[in-house]
Amino acid sequence: MIQRIFFDIDDTLFPTSEFAELARKNAIRAMIEQGVQESPEYLYSVLMRIFEKKGSNYSKAFDELCVQLKIKRPARFIAAAVAAYHNTKSSILPYPEVPILLLKLREHGYHLFIASNGDAVKQWDKLIRMGIELYFDDVFVSEEVGKEKSKLFFKRVLKQLKANPKECIMVGDREDADILPAKLAGLKTVRIRRGKYSKGKTVADFEIKDLRELEKIVANL
Amino acid sequence: MIQRIFFDIDDTLFPTSEFAELARKNAIRAMIEQGVQESPEYLYSVLMRIFEKKGSNYSKAFDELCVQLKIKRPARFIAAAVAAYHNTKSSILPYPEVPILLLKLREHGYHLFIASNGDAVKQWDKLIRMGIELYFDDVFVSEEVGKEKSKLFFKRVLKQLKANPKECIMVGDREDADILPAKLAGLKTVRIRRGKYSKGKTVADFEIKDLRELEKIVANL
Repeated sequence: MIQRIFFDIDDTLFPTSEFAELARKNAIRAMIEQGVQESPEYLYSVLMRIFEKKGSNYSKAFDELCVQLKIKRPARFIAAAVAAYHNTKSSILPYPEVPILLLKLREHGYHLFIASNGDAVKQWDKLIRMGIELYFDDVFVSEEVGKEKSKLFFKRVLKQLKANPKECIMVGDREDADILPAKLAGLKTVRIRRGKYSKGKTVADFEIKDLRELEKIVANL
Repeated sequence: MIQRIFFDIDDTLFPTSEFAELARKNAIRAMIEQGVQESPEYLYSVLMRIFEKKGSNYSKAFDELCVQLKIKRPARFIAAAVAAYHNTKSSILPYPEVPILLLKLREHGYHLFIASNGDAVKQWDKLIRMGIELYFDDVFVSEEVGKEKSKLFFKRVLKQLKANPKECIMVGDREDADILPAKLAGLKTVRIRRGKYSKGKTVADFEIKDLRELEKIVANL
């Protein structure tokens, strides 16, 4: 019988990739509004090359964009881009079924957890901005666990919770970071097919397209 | 005859000190909402001591606050505090008379400029968030001018604009950073009496309590 449900965050609880793209496009629109004389398509392509080279969390991307555009006094455009980017990123919404699902699962007595890679403050920021942080008994982020999501990550988490892996299920979109490591640690697994990692084979026990299906899956286990 | 009007930003165009205090208080409320077991008054006093010690722009103030509170897993509270802080800071509004005054001055043919100390991106961010950036012919921030507001700062700016100081007027709240240096460079000066620097003697040509009075002052010069 399942007692504990672990969720990934990005592209599992909210459409990370969509919001990232929208934030970048809004930033570019803001730069053009402030006077940059280039097409949005061109600016977007230059920006994407910067993120490809420096990583998608590169914090000086708009500074670098202004350098590549040879803008002499870039402060105005950096300020506009960063403000528009953060305004978009700070209004993230969960997938629409998420809040009510989490509430129902809690009502049914399940203990809910986050199991996520990344920076602990950034992942907490997402949960708080989505307004769903109170549903979780605890939040395990790789930075604090001391290990990227892997068999050992889940072993450590389960040990801390004094939990039997057979009573646990992991829900995530990525085969490499969610399904395989959780399975190796003995948890049941649910692969959610959405976002940019939606394709490819899976060894997950269940595959779903929408988190609403999760309620039945855990009830039947 | 006055042709160019220079404005300071902080506590001249918007109530900087009020927003800073509100942002800090909202950050503390958010930490308590997430479970910190202390009174808002106590947290605020600890936070203020951190800012006094490290400077009011210290970016790790909430990390440091969690250290002093001996919080073991601080990510949740840092994320909540920083989000609330930035949400407040990102919704700054100008003093209510500012937008219509700037529009009228432009209609009367005056050229408007910003003369501000600080980081260029941060100052542009404030103007853009207040929605008043288009009223200004140019924005001079000490970081870009290469000099804190001083006689030399204004000399450089006037040289760049090929402007006669007698046709220029500076409006600001601070005797040291606005009035004295502008006067030494030969500009007319207006001291606005509000914010935390509202007290003290002045050598300014005019003293006002509300920017609406500026319209008549420049018309009569």
